[in-house]
Amino acid sequence: MNPGVAWIAVDWGTSRLRAWAMGHDGTPIADAASEAGIGRLAKGGHEAALLALIGGWLPPGRRTEVIACGMVGSRQGWVEAPYAAVPCPPLDSARLAAAPAADPRLSVRVVPGLKQVAPADVMRGEETQIAGFLAGRPGFEGIVCLPGTHSKWARVAAGRVLAFRSFMTGEMFALLSEQSTLRHGLSGWDDTAFGAAVAAIRSSPGELAATLFGIRAEGLVAGLPPGAARARLSGALIGAELAGVAAFRRNEQVVLIGAEAPARAYAAALALEGVAPEVQPAAAMTLSGLARAHSCEGMRA
Amino acid sequence: MNPGVAWIAVDWGTSRLRAWAMGHDGTPIADAASEAGIGRLAKGGHEAALLALIGGWLPPGRRTEVIACGMVGSRQGWVEAPYAAVPCPPLDSARLAAAPAADPRLSVRVVPGLKQVAPADVMRGEETQIAGFLAGRPGFEGIVCLPGTHSKWARVAAGRVLAFRSFMTGEMFALLSEQSTLRHGLSGWDDTAFGAAVAAIRSSPGELAATLFGIRAEGLVAGLPPGAARARLSGALIGAELAGVAAFRRNEQVVLIGAEAPARAYAAALALEGVAPEVQPAAAMTLSGLARAHSCEGMRA
Repeated sequence: MNPGVAWIAVDWGTSRLRAWAMGHDGTPIADAASEAGIGRLAKGGHEAALLALIGGWLPPGRRTEVIACGMVGSRQGWVEAPYAAVPCPPLDSARLAAAPAADPRLSVRVVPGLKQVAPADVMRGEETQIAGFLAGRPGFEGIVCLPGTHSKWARVAAGRVLAFRSFMTGEMFALLSEQSTLRHGLSGWDDTAFGAAVAAIRSSPGELAATLFGIRAEGLVAGLPPGAARARLSGALIGAELAGVAAFRRNEQVVLIGAEAPARAYAAALALEGVAPEVQPAAAMTLSGLARAHSCEGMRA
Repeated sequence: MNPGVAWIAVDWGTSRLRAWAMGHDGTPIADAASEAGIGRLAKGGHEAALLALIGGWLPPGRRTEVIACGMVGSRQGWVEAPYAAVPCPPLDSARLAAAPAADPRLSVRVVPGLKQVAPADVMRGEETQIAGFLAGRPGFEGIVCLPGTHSKWARVAAGRVLAFRSFMTGEMFALLSEQSTLRHGLSGWDDTAFGAAVAAIRSSPGELAATLFGIRAEGLVAGLPPGAARARLSGALIGAELAGVAAFRRNEQVVLIGAEAPARAYAAALALEGVAPEVQPAAAMTLSGLARAHSCEGMRA
């Protein structure tokens, strides 16, 4: 029992579940995480997975509000929270979807993702980070880049997401570095090799698949060190993403929202074309977005 | 026991082992295959895996020559057959590497692969197919394209491989279609979607990672049919390869050596840029190349 818990913020993605117990003053008083990602849970297993993580935080005798974002709102999640179509605000607290919970201490609401019809695109989770960023910077106009499994570039103005583009860069890095022929001989990092690969693929993105095999070949033929190999893999994939997003990004200012390592890599890649992005930590933006949904939800009720 | 077996041809790749019992007239009299690929065998397990497949073909009381190509000659294989450096003939029977065999009925020799120093590149197995093709077309001058896990484009003239380039296209298709977010919702084929994806990425190869995620997004947002999704995945990857190889290929004639489905896809993609490649079946070219190594080996002995 924890009487100081005002509400609970939850970031529930494909591979991880993360929660914060929020105090009445709006700051987290506890946090917890587990591997009970949406991709690992069967239908009907969500409430138990959540209670296993946060059950101890719930005061008895009343409902505690839980606001969750991420894949928890997908068709494979706890409750499907239908996408809002851009252009629209990143997060509309009137559209939170109630998830069915049997425990009388729980009231769970899920943030909807965003969709774009043409070109077809979707996001779940990043909209909350964008909302969290805009909570502190309501007048921002420019591009928000969110590196990740499926990295996103969103054009934002007047508190709305106008359009966005997703790239499979992070998932390709994971597949190639963990499950492909390249998986042997990748470890460490080499900034110079990273920058060279970004620049080469940025100007010749068609070279990507040859560059990838070349990492293996140069390991066999010329002893390419594993740090250079890993950095080249990352640089080639990010360089291809920068080439692909160039027309969308134009020359607008860029804010990077990401975990430390990917944000550093993207910032280094952008620096090669003279862009010095502002960097914001992903977890803080998620929490800020969830807090915004909670506070507006409260005002609406 | 099979007294009609003159020698045995073996194609031993990462995932499969395939063998042909060759008669004295130079045609196969039996063939067999197993899943005992090099990637699945531990050091020291190669002879047993081979005997399990072909032991019944070996006449007693004499050594039968076995000629093998593919990853069997890699560092992880039965015996390392050091790469020959291009420019060079695809297969030099004086450079076959003897594999240590305990069974007195076996004499095993392995075809070396090819390497290129700059840009770094390697092949093992395809050199035998190129040699097999050149056995029937000694004057060929042009490009040989060999689709596969790591597809190869080789420039050939005067019986030699002058240079080549490899692309991870096939492995990326396998990873993305079997292990990525895209793996749900891919089945069947749609020629129109394939052609559209080839053409789009051929002209804008930087779009690759966005196009890949778009397959998933369009499935969610607009019900993209699974046949179109799978064909678009293949078309995007092959289109990126065609963009990447364009400068290497120039406008030279192209011979495609491949299994039926990939050869058809590559031929369709090349047709979009007005190239009508000659197509040769991969297994027949392998066998022809191994036969050439065997016959020259015999003359040399």
